[in-house]
Amino acid sequence: MESYVSSQTLQKATLELLKQRGVDVREIAAITLFLQRSYIPGLTLDQCLESVMHVLGKREVQNALLTGIELDILAENEMLSEPLQRIIASDDSLYGVDEILALSILNIYGSIGYTNYGYVDKLKYGVLARLNDHTSSRVHTFLDDLAGAVAAAAASRLAHRHRNEMETDHPI
Amino acid sequence: MESYVSSQTLQKATLELLKQRGVDVREIAAITLFLQRSYIPGLTLDQCLESVMHVLGKREVQNALLTGIELDILAENEMLSEPLQRIIASDDSLYGVDEILALSILNIYGSIGYTNYGYVDKLKYGVLARLNDHTSSRVHTFLDDLAGAVAAAAASRLAHRHRNEMETDHPI
Amino acid sequence: MESYVSSQTLQKATLELLKQRGVDVREIAAITLFLQRSYIPGLTLDQCLESVMHVLGKREVQNALLTGIELDILAENEMLSEPLQRIIASDDSLYGVDEILALSILNIYGSIGYTNYGYVDKLKYGVLARLNDHTSSRVHTFLDDLAGAVAAAAASRLAHRHRNEMETDHPI
Amino acid sequence: MESYVSSQTLQKATLELLKQRGVDVREIAAITLFLQRSYIPGLTLDQCLESVMHVLGKREVQNALLTGIELDILAENEMLSEPLQRIIASDDSLYGVDEILALSILNIYGSIGYTNYGYVDKLKYGVLARLNDHTSSRVHTFLDDLAGAVAAAAASRLAHRHRNEMETDHPI
Repeated sequence: MESYVSSQTLQKATLELLKQRGVDVREIAAITLFLQRSYIPGLTLDQCLESVMHVLGKREVQNALLTGIELDILAENEMLSEPLQRIIASDDSLYGVDEILALSILNIYGSIGYTNYGYVDKLKYGVLARLNDHTSSRVHTFLDDLAGAVAAAAASRLAHRHRNEMETDHPI
Repeated sequence: MESYVSSQTLQKATLELLKQRGVDVREIAAITLFLQRSYIPGLTLDQCLESVMHVLGKREVQNALLTGIELDILAENEMLSEPLQRIIASDDSLYGVDEILALSILNIYGSIGYTNYGYVDKLKYGVLARLNDHTSSRVHTFLDDLAGAVAAAAASRLAHRHRNEMETDHPI
Repeated sequence: MESYVSSQTLQKATLELLKQRGVDVREIAAITLFLQRSYIPGLTLDQCLESVMHVLGKREVQNALLTGIELDILAENEMLSEPLQRIIASDDSLYGVDEILALSILNIYGSIGYTNYGYVDKLKYGVLARLNDHTSSRVHTFLDDLAGAVAAAAASRLAHRHRNEMETDHPI
Repeated sequence: MESYVSSQTLQKATLELLKQRGVDVREIAAITLFLQRSYIPGLTLDQCLESVMHVLGKREVQNALLTGIELDILAENEMLSEPLQRIIASDDSLYGVDEILALSILNIYGSIGYTNYGYVDKLKYGVLARLNDHTSSRVHTFLDDLAGAVAAAAASRLAHRHRNEMETDHPI
């Protein structure tokens, strides 16, 4: 029998890594709330958090986060080869692999999350501003994009579920 | 209250359209079986069909199918404007919008379906050969790509679920 | 010899269709200028227009525009089948095929355009506000996303070229 | 003035890394020839090599290769954190980040390369078989997908250029 990494191990590692890098899942949920509150009356932070946790439970999302944050940490410790070390450590605007991993998270919940992701990434809303602070010695080249993508994916999931609930309440 | 199209309406329209265009969902399931049988011992056509129906239940998949097949039918009836009419009616190999819609179906189940999609599309496996027969007056420029993508997405879903089942049976 | 649609025909049809739908290419260039002017000192509208025209010269971009605008026009004339007619005519927020075609335009110039696209789409900057005005009988479900994507792709192209020029001026 | 990595440095690092990992660019060109020779009469290995070199000259392609191969090497030297170390070292079929980076290469040349990529990846054509040999201690989890994507992107580029040449020879 092949020895593979279990879902439980992946899930635990992802949540620990977020914590270790200073990101509270409630901060991601706050971005989701900002994005979705004008569309879903009465939406709470707890509902957003539930949606964020669901997104973080997907294997593709876990793999993107584990890979991106690993590269952030390696760059922070100057353990990557040149020229990749300099590209990631300086958060080079033409790098693009961070956006690619972010998109792989968004795709799981369909294409409607693309614009929300771009919007909060540009605004540097909430925790994204702290992650994007280039004055610290911390490297968050991947994590700021990935956190924004998780928030936008959670918003997409809420939009789909809200529609389903409205259908159940008001069948046509 | 906004008047939107219900999930039930979307689902029904998608299944009817596939039937109307001569595609039996069991034919799509047969492609899934071909792709996945060497990885999952004892996999049956019924299990593949169940997975195909789950994929066809997703709103993004329904929207891609409704849009692509509509364009096929309009081209078949010569109701599109030029030059789009000629591009779609001739299944121009450089068109590419068919592959883009196919990818949007694959993405819902992660990136592991990309290679399976490309493989069955090139082989023209099973029903894809019939859909790709350019001697008939039928236009299936979109449907052959979309049917292959649904089959590959259903295979990805089975791969993920098989892993989960192995974990439950053999916890580490 | 196969009879295919020539590049010249595609190019001409795309530019005419934009004009016919009330979009001046200079309005798209104005979005590009808004996105890029803080990164490239002295950037002019003419330079942005040159970049927009280059993006509009790509076959993939032309195919996405011809397809999306055709669907807009068909929906405006109530010539699509239900339920697709209602979904596109109402610019249903869960449709998603419009964002998928937009992404296919962005991808040609790499992933760095994703956030710019999302940003101007949310802001409804410039011409995008007019295209997104749902009080008119016009349907621009696809065109507003596609115009934003062309503008963001043109911005990505300028960012890449600006880097190359800085390298030539200041070789390391 | 910002100190960024120059195009020349990126290009040189990418070509050296391919060589260091045992991949001759002519082997990638051989895959392109296999994919395209039935569509372009008289196509030579040298023409395919020229197209492969053009693909390898794009910044997005260089960034994807530098990042993916770095992760391969780190996994080979057991320098990644768990559980990522085990996932990449074992080429876990549900990982998916390798396919995501491959797609980012394909996208630069449009969507028509998706099926070619999937096809050669499944066939393990040419050098891909050697890269995918799991009996060695070498880790090529990313490189086998990326090499296939470069070959398929080069094939897409040839297909577009062949069409343009036919138009020039036989104007309609």
